[in-house]
Amino acid sequence: MIEQRLLHLQKWLREEDISYAFIQGQANVFYFSGFRCHPYERIVSLLVFPDHEPCLVCPNMEKALVHQAGWSSDIIGYSDHEDPWELLSQYLSSLHLQGTNLAIEKEALFYARAEQLQKLSPDLSFVSIDAKLMEQRLIKSEAEISILREAAKLADFGVEVGVHALQTGRTEMDILALIEYELKRKGITEMSFGTLVLSGEQSANPHGSPSMKQIHPGEFVLFDLGVVLEGYCSDITRTVAFCDISEEQRNIYDTVLQAQLKTLDLCKKGTVLGDLDKTARKVITDAGYGKFFPHRIGHGLGSEVHELPSLNEKNKEQLKVGMTFTIEPGIYVPNVGGVRIEDEVLITDQGYECLTTYPKELQIIK
Amino acid sequence: MIEQRLLHLQKWLREEDISYAFIQGQANVFYFSGFRCHPYERIVSLLVFPDHEPCLVCPNMEKALVHQAGWSSDIIGYSDHEDPWELLSQYLSSLHLQGTNLAIEKEALFYARAEQLQKLSPDLSFVSIDAKLMEQRLIKSEAEISILREAAKLADFGVEVGVHALQTGRTEMDILALIEYELKRKGITEMSFGTLVLSGEQSANPHGSPSMKQIHPGEFVLFDLGVVLEGYCSDITRTVAFCDISEEQRNIYDTVLQAQLKTLDLCKKGTVLGDLDKTARKVITDAGYGKFFPHRIGHGLGSEVHELPSLNEKNKEQLKVGMTFTIEPGIYVPNVGGVRIEDEVLITDQGYECLTTYPKELQIIK
Repeated sequence: MIEQRLLHLQKWLREEDISYAFIQGQANVFYFSGFRCHPYERIVSLLVFPDHEPCLVCPNMEKALVHQAGWSSDIIGYSDHEDPWELLSQYLSSLHLQGTNLAIEKEALFYARAEQLQKLSPDLSFVSIDAKLMEQRLIKSEAEISILREAAKLADFGVEVGVHALQTGRTEMDILALIEYELKRKGITEMSFGTLVLSGEQSANPHGSPSMKQIHPGEFVLFDLGVVLEGYCSDITRTVAFCDISEEQRNIYDTVLQAQLKTLDLCKKGTVLGDLDKTARKVITDAGYGKFFPHRIGHGLGSEVHELPSLNEKNKEQLKVGMTFTIEPGIYVPNVGGVRIEDEVLITDQGYECLTTYPKELQIIK
Repeated sequence: MIEQRLLHLQKWLREEDISYAFIQGQANVFYFSGFRCHPYERIVSLLVFPDHEPCLVCPNMEKALVHQAGWSSDIIGYSDHEDPWELLSQYLSSLHLQGTNLAIEKEALFYARAEQLQKLSPDLSFVSIDAKLMEQRLIKSEAEISILREAAKLADFGVEVGVHALQTGRTEMDILALIEYELKRKGITEMSFGTLVLSGEQSANPHGSPSMKQIHPGEFVLFDLGVVLEGYCSDITRTVAFCDISEEQRNIYDTVLQAQLKTLDLCKKGTVLGDLDKTARKVITDAGYGKFFPHRIGHGLGSEVHELPSLNEKNKEQLKVGMTFTIEPGIYVPNVGGVRIEDEVLITDQGYECLTTYPKELQIIK
């Protein structure tokens, strides 16, 4: 699998007269090496050459994990007191590379690192490899889909734990703690983003922070969470009503649900991406809540919890079989509360499949 | 507090003939605005001008949180379908700025964003603001120290929960889940890095991954964890023996503890940073374990869990009052296990203070 990904990339390097590619975004390194880590300020980078074996640059203390991940090509290891750029320079000069371009992740490479690379290879011109890498990652393979499906099931389970935990007197953080406790006991070492449990007025903030606020009858409780499983992310949002619900809240909920269902109906190959956002926005605007839907309808999802495609209303590209992304309309009314309903969607030959499957009909938890 | 930080920075901008500073590293934005968020691929950036009020660029949906954080200067808000660079361009052209340089975080700004900035301001030259910002953040104020102290107490508590949870049959992930559960119930929404609970041979990997492995009598169990509290990080490592310990394990533990204590003795203003690493390394090497200590002795810590100063053996700078960093020697012997003992250290007028205080004498947990 990884070998084929590399072969595909190497072909592109030859076509574009690229001397070498310097890849260091976490998800990209993972995609082409199987090795995934958070190196903080240290460099972990994959060098891909048109006609040589690739090479991984990493701290010496990560070497064992790199081997564990199945990497069998060259490794340039360095200690904290060594300069990895110097080691890299020696390695590169031993290769006698051709080509006039140096491919970098312009969207993910720090400027200072680009300066270092320019020093190493003063005759090469930078070209962006971002679009190419994302194009390779955009369509998920069967193996990737099967991991994404498992990750989505764990997200479903997280919501289930949260909904069962609702109880007067408990805080948002009590409930959040319990959700993550149950997931971590199943072996999840990393959530795909900071779990949200937001209640009442707090739910009216699309990126609010969970807190020590207790949940009260009559409030919405919004859960937004996901896990990282074998390098792939999940992401689900569900909103339930606790004990009781007003007419206005019910109206908000129904509008969001209708917006989501109507948008899902459009999810099939060929649909223009921007139309997904427009469709949801129209349902919400027609119901009078247009100004309370401040974000796009969704985002791509895979090794990164936010990746391409971007589902904003201006995106003119079309859905393709194997794309995975979220559909997550929301309405956030200050002083009333917010509702968001989010599923992960996979485009299939037949149309679409929701990878997240927790029920989304309005639940009033007594 | 933030006002004074900005004034200090503005003075520097004037001295260096800087037209404006574009700041977007999470910790730097927080330091100068009080606002801390994970914007993913979206831009959250602070513009600081020599002679104007600063301005914060953020998604519209973050605006409420920016206000909550206490920000009262200009905000450029943008929606997902808008181009923030265009809005920024309009804003900048209304200001009639002087100066020939544009200050960017070369160490934290993606290359593509630098290209966007160059397009906005084609006549300006990039200068690095990284060292200046880190210099400002390097010495912690009383207010910052008091938060760091609280964050460290929570890390102590995390280790305490973990040690109490040790029990035959429990997995590393069971124990990790419990530690984070108890911390999150106290209101902690974010760990400062992925918590480690590593046992037996797994502890021999300085950056190993916690797993579903059960803990067994005779094994080391290593805890490495920290929280983010009000934007400040903590970081502690403790290693205990479960039920039983061999002579070799005891020797490893004693060596690491001696290395740590001897290094702490040097922690006072004026000490050359590189000497800290050398001191620990000498103790460990003299005991015959030199090749099993593959990382530097520590790292700075504040709003970021890894920041300056870097405590590698080549750093010639001196310790100053108000610096905070970790001292964390370790020995990792394949097939035997690993020990790391890590404390957070604050340099004081009198010498040093360990912010983390969980006991570090060898504990054999029965």
